[in-house]
Amino acid sequence: MEAKITTDICIIGAGPVGLFAVFEAGLLKMRCHLIDVLPQAGGQLSEIYPQKPIYDIPGFPTINAQELVENLKEQIAPFQPTFTLGEKVEEVIKLETGEFLIRTNGQSVVEARVIVIAGGLGCFEPRKPELKNLERFEGRGVHYFVKNTAVYRDKHVVIAGGGDSALDWTVFLADKAERVTLVHRSESFRGAPDTVDKVFALANEGKIDLLLQSNVTGLLGEDYLEGVFLERNDGSKTAIKADYFIPLFGLTPKLGPIADWGLQLHNAAIEVNTFDYSTNVPGIFAIGDINSYPGKLKLILCGFHEAALMAQSAFHIVYPDKKRTFKYTTVYGVTGF
Amino acid sequence: MEAKITTDICIIGAGPVGLFAVFEAGLLKMRCHLIDVLPQAGGQLSEIYPQKPIYDIPGFPTINAQELVENLKEQIAPFQPTFTLGEKVEEVIKLETGEFLIRTNGQSVVEARVIVIAGGLGCFEPRKPELKNLERFEGRGVHYFVKNTAVYRDKHVVIAGGGDSALDWTVFLADKAERVTLVHRSESFRGAPDTVDKVFALANEGKIDLLLQSNVTGLLGEDYLEGVFLERNDGSKTAIKADYFIPLFGLTPKLGPIADWGLQLHNAAIEVNTFDYSTNVPGIFAIGDINSYPGKLKLILCGFHEAALMAQSAFHIVYPDKKRTFKYTTVYGVTGF
Repeated sequence: MEAKITTDICIIGAGPVGLFAVFEAGLLKMRCHLIDVLPQAGGQLSEIYPQKPIYDIPGFPTINAQELVENLKEQIAPFQPTFTLGEKVEEVIKLETGEFLIRTNGQSVVEARVIVIAGGLGCFEPRKPELKNLERFEGRGVHYFVKNTAVYRDKHVVIAGGGDSALDWTVFLADKAERVTLVHRSESFRGAPDTVDKVFALANEGKIDLLLQSNVTGLLGEDYLEGVFLERNDGSKTAIKADYFIPLFGLTPKLGPIADWGLQLHNAAIEVNTFDYSTNVPGIFAIGDINSYPGKLKLILCGFHEAALMAQSAFHIVYPDKKRTFKYTTVYGVTGF
Repeated sequence: MEAKITTDICIIGAGPVGLFAVFEAGLLKMRCHLIDVLPQAGGQLSEIYPQKPIYDIPGFPTINAQELVENLKEQIAPFQPTFTLGEKVEEVIKLETGEFLIRTNGQSVVEARVIVIAGGLGCFEPRKPELKNLERFEGRGVHYFVKNTAVYRDKHVVIAGGGDSALDWTVFLADKAERVTLVHRSESFRGAPDTVDKVFALANEGKIDLLLQSNVTGLLGEDYLEGVFLERNDGSKTAIKADYFIPLFGLTPKLGPIADWGLQLHNAAIEVNTFDYSTNVPGIFAIGDINSYPGKLKLILCGFHEAALMAQSAFHIVYPDKKRTFKYTTVYGVTGF
């Protein structure tokens, strides 16, 4: 039988918000174990843009994404968090004693009083177009996320979609790729008006190709993608060269076994209240980009706030008989475990 | 006639949260002017504990209070905030055009679409005991806040009160002052149970004097405080040596002319909703320690979150005809004015 990890709070997702939750929990003497499907802590910051500067973390005019992760790891070190990395949650059951039992695909078992879902975008997967051979070209020309922009330099890139991601990356890659083609099924975009204006301006200047009322209907190539088939809404067909095809049709939640818990969803995110960012399931909280509430902004700094308020309520679950004592670290400092 | 400053958002209070609000407003192309009664930006951090380390700012395992202020000033510099320092708001009127007109005691006049109250503790004043000669000894032995703890070293300190502040400072000063006497009118405390335990333990060990069912009824001294008169609830009277008397009876709001606006108050703070931290008065928001909502924690990091959500709604007031465009600084960087 596998060893069981017993902790107060099991945090699913070890991105910046999950990491900071360890700090807020630790101040209230609660231990945390974090599970992440990625092989390292840091979430998107470490996985997708470690070298990218971030400008909107309060107190840092600019900070490298990976540096923020390292800082957070140092900040939570006194609270000795434990990690299960490179595994994903496969089963969650509630014991009669009130504890949750979380089992991963790596056969790790965690017992905890409280579950905090802080999985960010990791809880989502890209909405994929229905195309024959799509899987075959994944990682071989088909990208669902833009991670390393350098690979598109001097390449033919076809982007599909009508939202902010499609518009933003079209603008961003316009002067980097050899050619950017934006394919969109209708004539109007859902994105920010001034980005829409920029895309139309780039098209008018001949700097990108904008194909409206069109869809990508097929993929061409041998080992790697070489082109895409296109069909206009009027039925006319064509094919163009494409080293990369980036369909940006948004994300759908991929909550795994947590979905079975009947969590209330809203706009592909987990509904929480703003009192303590708890979900509709007692004992389960959701913080960071994965949650939804009126006014929600998907900012790291908002996740930090959510972690702080979550910890106050988690305390009452972990220590049902103790009165919570709120203390300022400026007076008392931080005492680890 | 005095020069008028015209801006989008007038932020009352230039502490860390007020400063960061400039950043969030700036991302949405709104200009800010800040007013603070203190002679420098930074609020409590610069005024009360500039050299104190802070441990709970996400991403900083530890940061000196003044360093955080300097970082925030650097972070908002691209948005060119303007300041009126060392003055306090004396009059707020609403023009027919919808703008607010704010006048300070230094005759500065600011016209703005939106008012953000971020005054923190600066919007409060200590609740003073009713004692003859109290004003005479203010700053000459009577302190309402503990700022520089070094002054109490080897001194006789009398603290009065029954809440967390009185308890915390009693514990903190117990081994620093020559003698600490805690005077409390009843037998039970409102503070955190484990701090209460600590205070009783210190008293039992003879390390502090704990006078319950007692009140300070008078002050003794010539130029400086020399002692206090005490009266027990049973009527018995005494006097003890005191170099410092620190009455900690909590705070009362000191909202000045803003009080006339009929802001909804709750527990000596301004009630806001968690959608955008707006008050019940259209166009007036309250962020940071001055506001109140279910779950509220008086943490700087929470004020940062509140500033971000506030800015989204302020945008619709400043630019009623524009659609708000939410952009990640990681993609676009920060463009100043």
